[in-house]
This record gives sequence, structure tokens and C-alpha cells, in this order.
Amino acid sequence: MAPLQPLVTVNLGVRSYPVYIGNGIIFETGRLARDVGLRGQAAIITDETVDQFYGSALRESISQAGFKASLHRVPAGERSKSFAVLETLTESLARAAVDRQAFVVALGGGVIGDLAGLVAAIYRRGLPYIQVPTTVMAQVDSAVGGKTAINLAAGKNLVGSFHQPRLVVTDTSTPKTLGVREWNEGFAEIIKYGIICDPSLFEQLERSTPPLAELVKRCVEIKAGFVERDEQERSGERALLNFGHTVGHGLEAAAGYGTLLHGEAVSLGMRAAALISMRRAGLQTAEATRIQRLLERYSLPTRLTLNLPPSRILEKILSDKKFIGGKIRFVVIPRLGAAQVTDEVGKEDLEWAIASLAE
Amino acid sequence: MAPLQPLVTVNLGVRSYPVYIGNGIIFETGRLARDVGLRGQAAIITDETVDQFYGSALRESISQAGFKASLHRVPAGERSKSFAVLETLTESLARAAVDRQAFVVALGGGVIGDLAGLVAAIYRRGLPYIQVPTTVMAQVDSAVGGKTAINLAAGKNLVGSFHQPRLVVTDTSTPKTLGVREWNEGFAEIIKYGIICDPSLFEQLERSTPPLAELVKRCVEIKAGFVERDEQERSGERALLNFGHTVGHGLEAAAGYGTLLHGEAVSLGMRAAALISMRRAGLQTAEATRIQRLLERYSLPTRLTLNLPPSRILEKILSDKKFIGGKIRFVVIPRLGAAQVTDEVGKEDLEWAIASLAE
Repeated sequence: MAPLQPLVTVNLGVRSYPVYIGNGIIFETGRLARDVGLRGQAAIITDETVDQFYGSALRESISQAGFKASLHRVPAGERSKSFAVLETLTESLARAAVDRQAFVVALGGGVIGDLAGLVAAIYRRGLPYIQVPTTVMAQVDSAVGGKTAINLAAGKNLVGSFHQPRLVVTDTSTPKTLGVREWNEGFAEIIKYGIICDPSLFEQLERSTPPLAELVKRCVEIKAGFVERDEQERSGERALLNFGHTVGHGLEAAAGYGTLLHGEAVSLGMRAAALISMRRAGLQTAEATRIQRLLERYSLPTRLTLNLPPSRILEKILSDKKFIGGKIRFVVIPRLGAAQVTDEVGKEDLEWAIASLAE
Repeated sequence: MAPLQPLVTVNLGVRSYPVYIGNGIIFETGRLARDVGLRGQAAIITDETVDQFYGSALRESISQAGFKASLHRVPAGERSKSFAVLETLTESLARAAVDRQAFVVALGGGVIGDLAGLVAAIYRRGLPYIQVPTTVMAQVDSAVGGKTAINLAAGKNLVGSFHQPRLVVTDTSTPKTLGVREWNEGFAEIIKYGIICDPSLFEQLERSTPPLAELVKRCVEIKAGFVERDEQERSGERALLNFGHTVGHGLEAAAGYGTLLHGEAVSLGMRAAALISMRRAGLQTAEATRIQRLLERYSLPTRLTLNLPPSRILEKILSDKKFIGGKIRFVVIPRLGAAQVTDEVGKEDLEWAIASLAE
């Protein structure tokens, strides 16, 4: 077979890894895992829905490359990002005699990537793992960068680790089996990249939708840059990727995990952040309107139709973020294509923006 | 105040940290935390028993150094090394608004150190932490080296991380409040260091018991050396510290966590490993007898008096260790003061040794 070239490399010294992107590339997973030096048995973690579509293709590729594999399935959906499922999974790996030489394969969307990545980080004090993202959301965003997480009642992603994968295998034909909501939610993160640092991507999306493989490559390149400059979100640089996520995470937690899809919550959160940016960072009304229109073009919510008390949303944001002197660290955009962290956003700004979402 | 000098430093490049050892040194915890550069609020994790004895001394020291602190208590004992307690603790930290600038303080014995270290590794994707070990076991062994863990039904310490502390504050006056079983169990690990690499320590213990501060310093120096040479137990060097632990962990899991203290299980495991070393590594009978006698001198068990089916113990060892062609990787001692890993130990050796413990 001809050698495959990674389309993007995430450069992190000894923790660098390749991202392969292509149609049908899931069938190459086994040999790519060999190429990056993985040797032991494979522990495949996936959800019941993804397993039906892609489980056998992946297992075949893994076993054809000579790996022994075990399969560990969890229910689909955000509620699987819990301690209960983490315990079930690790006990399942132990029963399958998954040892320290093994590696984990995360086959699925953002939930599976976050969860399986954390399993890999803590099972037997850490195994290597590979990401095989099957949704738009995971392909353009969560499969790259090494953030793993589960949720607490107190807030989203409050437990996790920074644990970089050894390899990302992105088959851009797999999202075709997504439902329409799950397809569209991925575009919330694509639009986010446009808003915070790539105005030409934003404009392109306003005109028409480029092929998915092209979008994935562009988004992964952007994300890799942020991760390379600030792997563990210390300098504030990587924090810019959280644009729309403060209010978004508050909405997800307040509504009950799984009620709003992550991308839907981020869409609402980005509209809120755009409104706050008008107040606090000089964003022009016309640009905030363009953001709202583009989100709506992908059928993403910009109005809160759930019956959620604003106080409950604010309470969830409060348990996630620290208010110092009544202010919060918050990502704003002075204009399309530029983002910055500010300490100037107060509780009343959040209350006003949340109320505006409900109008 | 006069500056304190660390008695031992664990040299791991950017992850190096000092170990302070002394009587009454718990009162210096706050300023030592400042000295190593910790700045945010402190989340103190301890158990109900330790809190009664040392909670107020520690909190006072922490707050006198200007830190805000929150207290998070769990029941005493091995059963707290569970996903359930991990969830309770992380939710408790979130409710106390413990943020990414905070640090964790592990105040207690080996259980608290393992558990609080894992909380620090995964809460908000990782906080720094300090160890304040209060038992002989934790002071001579578990507080140094960065291994954190909880247990699964399938086996001990199967979930965890390598997460080095930023500081270890060892007050050698705190173990005086231990019960006699808890005091003695710590000597299992001290004797272990003598067996695997320090015959003069072994001989010293045969004659009399040196002061605890002297034993702690010597053991921490030995342990630091192993950790520096093989931080993540990759080369096999650090694995030598697991002498007696394969059978020991199997006994702990089979008896039900907390039935045997860890040191008691290790004592039984070391006798088993000595017997196997006679068979497989040429250990002389006289030296195996000396090991048994020294363990008994510290009232440590060398005979299995619990009514445990050997098959159940073996099953727990099997779910922890991988048998390749009927053999297991196992630490043996060809003579006192020398340890090595061998692939020559089979299931029947384990069965024989376990049966010998029960005789």
C-alpha cells in the first residue's frame, strides 16, 4: 500500500502527532496505528449508535493490522460523560485483561473522544490512545488538542486531563450518517473559528458550504496552532477557543446534559458573547447581526426557547467561573476575526445577554 | 523565621520537589507552600480520623501563610479509594469554588495521598498538590513518587495517574497517634527497602529500631533514587519497589479492601515472594527465614489466617497481571539486598506459595 501522508501535524515535541483526513480512511486505522508505533492490544471505546455504523469497519482494520481488540460500548449522548460510566468502562477494560502495553481507540463523536481519552489517561495510570472522530463536531474540534473530560453536576468538563492522542484518523465520509441536528451542531465550532481568527472562512460560509474535508483541514490547522502555542491553557491563548463556551456550558448544565447539543449551546453562547462584545469591546451591531444570521443559516439556535430561569443559568456559570470583584474572565471580539480575554465583563452583562437570548 | 532545608530532593527536572522531614514541621506547611511558589486557595483533603488530630494545626498553618482554605473530608480507610468518593470529592471542590489557580493538600496516610493526588490530577484537568503524610506507611513510601490511585473491583490501584507533588511535608511526630496495627504496617515497606536494596538497613532493623526520622530519611532517599531513574515504571527499575505487592494486592482485593491493611498484605506477599525466590532465584532458606523473622518482629502477618480460597486470590492476581505462556513478570530476590524482575514464575509457583502462607 502507498504510504499515507498526514494532512496536519500537531507539533508538541515528543508529544507530536499526525492527523490524517480523508474519505474512507477509517479502513486504514490499523496500519496507521502500527505506523505510529503502537504495539499492544486495542481497547475500542464507542457508543451503541456509532458501533452500528462503523464498529465493524474499524474492528476489521484493527485486526487486519494484527492487533487483538476488545470492544467497550456505552450509551450514546452527553450523559455518558459521568463518573458512573467511567467506572463501568475501566472495570470492563480490566475484565478484558487490557494491560499497560495496550492502547485505547476512541471511535465516535465529542462525547466518546472526551470520555475515552480520560479512560486512557487514568486506566493503569495512563495508556496511549488514538482518536477516530465520526462527527463534524469531533472532526473539526474535539478530537484534536488532548482535552479529555467528564461532567459534574456542578458544571461541564470539570473533571478531566490534558492527554494528547498519538494519532487522529478522520474519515470525512462518516458524518453522513448523522441526524440533521448533529450535523449542524458541528458548524457552530466551524463558525467559531471564523469569528475568532479567520474572517475569510466566515465569509466563505456566508456564501456557501465548502466540502467537509476542506473545512476539517482548515479547522484542524487553526486548532493545532492554538494548542501548539498554549497546550495546557496557561497563557490565555488557548482560552480564546472558549468563545461562546462560558454561557454555552452554563446552558448545557442548567438544561440538563443532553437536552441541548453542545454545538447548539455554543451557538446560543456565541450570540450572547457577541452581544456582550457590543457592550464591552466595541463590536459593531452589523457584525453581531452577521454572526446571528450565519448561525441561523445552519439552523443553529440563537434564541432560548427552553423554559430555563436565567438565575439557574447564571448559577451554573458562577460555579464554573470565578468572579473577582464582580467581574469574570470572558472572551470577547472587538471585530470579526479577532478575539481577546477581558476582565471587564460583570454579572449584569451576563444577565442582560441571557435575557436577550430569551426575547 | 530561619529558612528550612529540605532533607531530600526528588530530582525530576522541572518536576523536582523537596521533601522536608522533622518533628513538628506540620506547622510550617503554609510557608513551605509559599516557598515552592503556590499562590491560590488551598483545598485540604483528609479523613475524619486524621482531621481530629491534625486538621486544625494544618489549617492554622495554611491560613497564617495567607491562603484561603476549604476542607474536604472522607471516611477513613481503603474503601475510600473508589470512584464514588472521587465523585463526592470533586463535586465538593466545585461547590467550594476551587478554581484552576488553587492547590490540593493531601493530609493523611496512604489512602488519602493516593486519592487526593488523583483528585489533583483530574479536577479541572490538573492542579498542583502537596503531600502531608501522617502515617509511617505514607512517610516512608507512598507520599513520594507521584503515584496516585483508586481501586477497582477487578484489582487494586488500577485507576490513577503519575502526578508528582510540588512539596512533601513530613512531620515525624504525627504517626504517634496511630494504632498499633497502623504503626506496624509501615514497617512492611521499610523492611522491603532493606530486602531489595539495603542489607545494612535490614540488619539494623534486626538489632533494634532506629528513630523514625532517620528511617524516613533513608527510605525517602532510596525511593527518590528509584523514581528518578524510572519515573513512570517503564524500564523495570521502579517495578522492583513492587516486591511483595503482586500477591499482596491479590490478597487485599480478595479479602475485600480494608480487611487487611496494605502493609499487612505486603508482609504476606513478601513472605510468598521469598518462598518463590527460593524456588526460582536461588534465595537461601536461611535468608528467607530471616525475612520471616524480621516481619514477625514487627508483628506483621506471615501466615494467612483469613478463610480465603486460594483460587480467589489467584483470580485477583490474574486480573491484575498478565500471564504470557503461563508465566508472569514477578520481582524475586536472589539474595538479601538484590532484586530483579523475572519471567520465570508460573501459576503453580503462586499456588504453592499461597498454600504455604495458609499452612
